[in-house]
Amino acid sequence: MQKKRILSGMRPTGKLHIGHFVGALENWIKLQDEYESYHLIADYHVLTTNLSTENIYQNSIDMLIDWLAAGLNPEKSPMFRQSQIKEHTELFLIFSMLITKARLERNPTLKEQVRDLNIENVIYGHLGYPVLQSADILLYKGEAVPVGEDQVPHVEITREIARRFNNQYGEVFPEPEALLTNFARLPGLDGDAKMSKSLNNTILLSDDAEMVKQKLRKAVTDPQKVRKNDPGRPEICLIFTYHKKFNADEVDDIEINCKSGSLGCVDCKMKCASKINEWLSPIIDKRKYYESNIENVKAILNDGEIKAKKVASETMKEVREKMKLG
Amino acid sequence: MQKKRILSGMRPTGKLHIGHFVGALENWIKLQDEYESYHLIADYHVLTTNLSTENIYQNSIDMLIDWLAAGLNPEKSPMFRQSQIKEHTELFLIFSMLITKARLERNPTLKEQVRDLNIENVIYGHLGYPVLQSADILLYKGEAVPVGEDQVPHVEITREIARRFNNQYGEVFPEPEALLTNFARLPGLDGDAKMSKSLNNTILLSDDAEMVKQKLRKAVTDPQKVRKNDPGRPEICLIFTYHKKFNADEVDDIEINCKSGSLGCVDCKMKCASKINEWLSPIIDKRKYYESNIENVKAILNDGEIKAKKVASETMKEVREKMKLG
Repeated sequence: MQKKRILSGMRPTGKLHIGHFVGALENWIKLQDEYESYHLIADYHVLTTNLSTENIYQNSIDMLIDWLAAGLNPEKSPMFRQSQIKEHTELFLIFSMLITKARLERNPTLKEQVRDLNIENVIYGHLGYPVLQSADILLYKGEAVPVGEDQVPHVEITREIARRFNNQYGEVFPEPEALLTNFARLPGLDGDAKMSKSLNNTILLSDDAEMVKQKLRKAVTDPQKVRKNDPGRPEICLIFTYHKKFNADEVDDIEINCKSGSLGCVDCKMKCASKINEWLSPIIDKRKYYESNIENVKAILNDGEIKAKKVASETMKEVREKMKLG
Repeated sequence: MQKKRILSGMRPTGKLHIGHFVGALENWIKLQDEYESYHLIADYHVLTTNLSTENIYQNSIDMLIDWLAAGLNPEKSPMFRQSQIKEHTELFLIFSMLITKARLERNPTLKEQVRDLNIENVIYGHLGYPVLQSADILLYKGEAVPVGEDQVPHVEITREIARRFNNQYGEVFPEPEALLTNFARLPGLDGDAKMSKSLNNTILLSDDAEMVKQKLRKAVTDPQKVRKNDPGRPEICLIFTYHKKFNADEVDDIEINCKSGSLGCVDCKMKCASKINEWLSPIIDKRKYYESNIENVKAILNDGEIKAKKVASETMKEVREKMKLG
């Protein structure tokens, strides 16, 4: 039986953090055996909230290295930049005729971004980014999309556009399903619910052992646990969340000892740091390999773009035939 | 000195009428010696108000034949379909990041269309059609755009987008000027201020002599001139407007004789018909030539698309370099 196809992508904002891994990459790595995966470096999407493109190429390369170091396999899944496959923009234009402005204005993620980024005046392309995302997915006839809860409304828009196209011009596109990621968010070092570059509360996949220790040392814990032997509340502690993820074997002991007051925060943090470092170590080694073999990375990208281009142009050929665009 | 470059385009809605000629084509034909002209068959634009693409190819060919028959010279000016030059959509996407939704909502032409076509829910791509138009113009670095009064706001949007791009990424685009057409509108046969296919009040460039006579016979004239010898009011008569355009030599006599009542409407209409037919005759002959040499028409289109593609990809190369898209 043929494998189902999935499309997953990230905006290239530079080096990835462990939140990206837990929220998405880990899932992609799992899925790459079960599905035929396409991995998109969504560089045009960056423009919706930031016009500066000064670092966009380097950020794309940095992200790709993290993908490879974390375990995405370029033999199995092409990795490619949106900006290099013109067909994304063709399909974006066509799809832009298949959805109303009002429908896009109701997109809850847009509303959130407008609030969080204090946007006074929404950019036309920003309003339309779920349309571009639909083109990203459907260009590869993605049948499923691994996403977090917050991306589900976009997948719904994609399904609507696929249906609308198929009804108007004939069957070309599948209606992709959302594949929800279980462990969706890792809290930031400052206690914020989300690890995020803009909040400067991250542990990078490329942080060395010393850096991870330093960062954890400064991390926020339960503010009621002032002295070492005070009892703590692991359920509100971000370090405990990290333990759950990276130190599953010891997590029960840690919970007990934190609550009883026998485990102090500094010790607990250093236990956590060493587990994270243990986990990061092979990733960092692979990263070093790719960093010193940058031509290899570029070849992987080039190869991915050739493969993606082939599928994309086949889809567009079909689209043009159905639309009788000549 | 190098000629300035202009971009002019029309939506392919099928065979053209004499209103298209007077409102645009005549001007384009004049300008093709003075400027380096690019003539766009704006097939993607059709989708903004009509999703059906069933006839889009045939309509494009029909319009091209009319262009050629009317006197556009393919040796001087490439003629090409928007849908065949992917770069239009690339630049559209990039430009969509350079303008706000609010700015596009203020576009007076959109407001007019929403009213005239009874549009309840504006399509996202419809809202953005001045952005696509900006891409159409700037992809060829159009320095001027021959337009009617109603298109001036779009040229203003194009200038804004050009400035915004140049400021953000470095100088690539000129700020095009509107070249206003003098004799902008021909009234329809039913007395409507505008000749328009959807009102079914047109004389086509491809109408034969008999058809022109028939259509003029049924045309509306001054309703107060009931009997042949009643005095008429040429200033409110569409036939008189046609005389002004196609029968300049006799127009003074016609005015006097209409006003005095010595010229009846039927005679006046037949005079007009014979002048229009005289003028149409070489166009119809050329049309017949192209209709029976359709391979020639396709070769002209193909050649135009190769030339346009070359310029378009040079511009996009520059755009990508400035944006450092890699």
